[in-house]
Amino acid sequence: MKADAGGVELGENPKSSTPRSGLNRGLSILDFILRLIAIFGTLASAISMGTTNETLPFFTRFVRFRAKYDDLPTFTFFVVANSIVSAYVVLSLPLSIFHIVRSTAKNSRIILIIFDTGMLALLTAGASAAAAIVYLAHNGNTKTNWFAICQQFNSFCERTSGSLIGSFVGIVVLVLVIFLSSVAISRP
Amino acid sequence: MKADAGGVELGENPKSSTPRSGLNRGLSILDFILRLIAIFGTLASAISMGTTNETLPFFTRFVRFRAKYDDLPTFTFFVVANSIVSAYVVLSLPLSIFHIVRSTAKNSRIILIIFDTGMLALLTAGASAAAAIVYLAHNGNTKTNWFAICQQFNSFCERTSGSLIGSFVGIVVLVLVIFLSSVAISRP
Repeated sequence: MKADAGGVELGENPKSSTPRSGLNRGLSILDFILRLIAIFGTLASAISMGTTNETLPFFTRFVRFRAKYDDLPTFTFFVVANSIVSAYVVLSLPLSIFHIVRSTAKNSRIILIIFDTGMLALLTAGASAAAAIVYLAHNGNTKTNWFAICQQFNSFCERTSGSLIGSFVGIVVLVLVIFLSSVAISRP
Repeated sequence: MKADAGGVELGENPKSSTPRSGLNRGLSILDFILRLIAIFGTLASAISMGTTNETLPFFTRFVRFRAKYDDLPTFTFFVVANSIVSAYVVLSLPLSIFHIVRSTAKNSRIILIIFDTGMLALLTAGASAAAAIVYLAHNGNTKTNWFAICQQFNSFCERTSGSLIGSFVGIVVLVLVIFLSSVAISRP
């Protein structure tokens, strides 16, 4: 472990660049690990939502007896958003490894920040739209005459609710990744 | 002004710091203008959604004759999210002005990036959850027996759809702001 020499801005610290690049390397390794978590989270969400369907063993007052995730366009968007983000993070891994090796790289980190931010927005949009629909499926809305469907499709509801978790983990991880990148960029 | 020793990575560039801090000042001014746009967008969204209600002049098959934004919890969340982001961006203006004056500041920019990213996630969550519900109000969903309510509450639907615009403008602006900050941080 090397001693670090941060303190940008307040009090310049004209030491050699080695300790700083050591801290940057640590940040890059953390960045890599976080990206792995994001991949697992979003991929798990996409797969878990994408394989959701339930066939009821009995008749209900609804005409149909089968619930599938793509009955609701929002869930389709959720699966697409999670898949895109997951694929993006996989593609960003080589760059993340490059940052571990060349820990003073800046331009490539800026490029990553831009895409990370875009992907954060996409993932949040998918997760929160799906959460809004899941909430509606659980509670319904009497004012608009939208009934809760979770009494009928119980395991469908549990599955769709559960698949939100991975997405929200991904959101938190992406926020952390953007933060780490901005700290790494600020070090000269 | 200190002489700088940046140009890390691609080609060392030992010029004086004046042109760079000039570019940073330009970025900071752009940042300030973008924040003003974000304030107007999110505030307009919050007010426009928060004042939405419609009383029908005739009887329908629905029991109630009045639609208000807080009949749907998602719209309440939308108003809250937009208000919080709007208030945050107002509070961030002094720091943005400080960056125009002290264009080489870094630590304060990193702090702003963290909060900007969090606010981006909050705003995207609010806007996209509301968009999911607006979509449902327009199109309904036959599979779950959720009927479109826009035939009955026409102006309510137009108003809620319209108030999404300011929010999405705010999202785009926040992404740009984060990008500008990261570029400004990277310059030594």
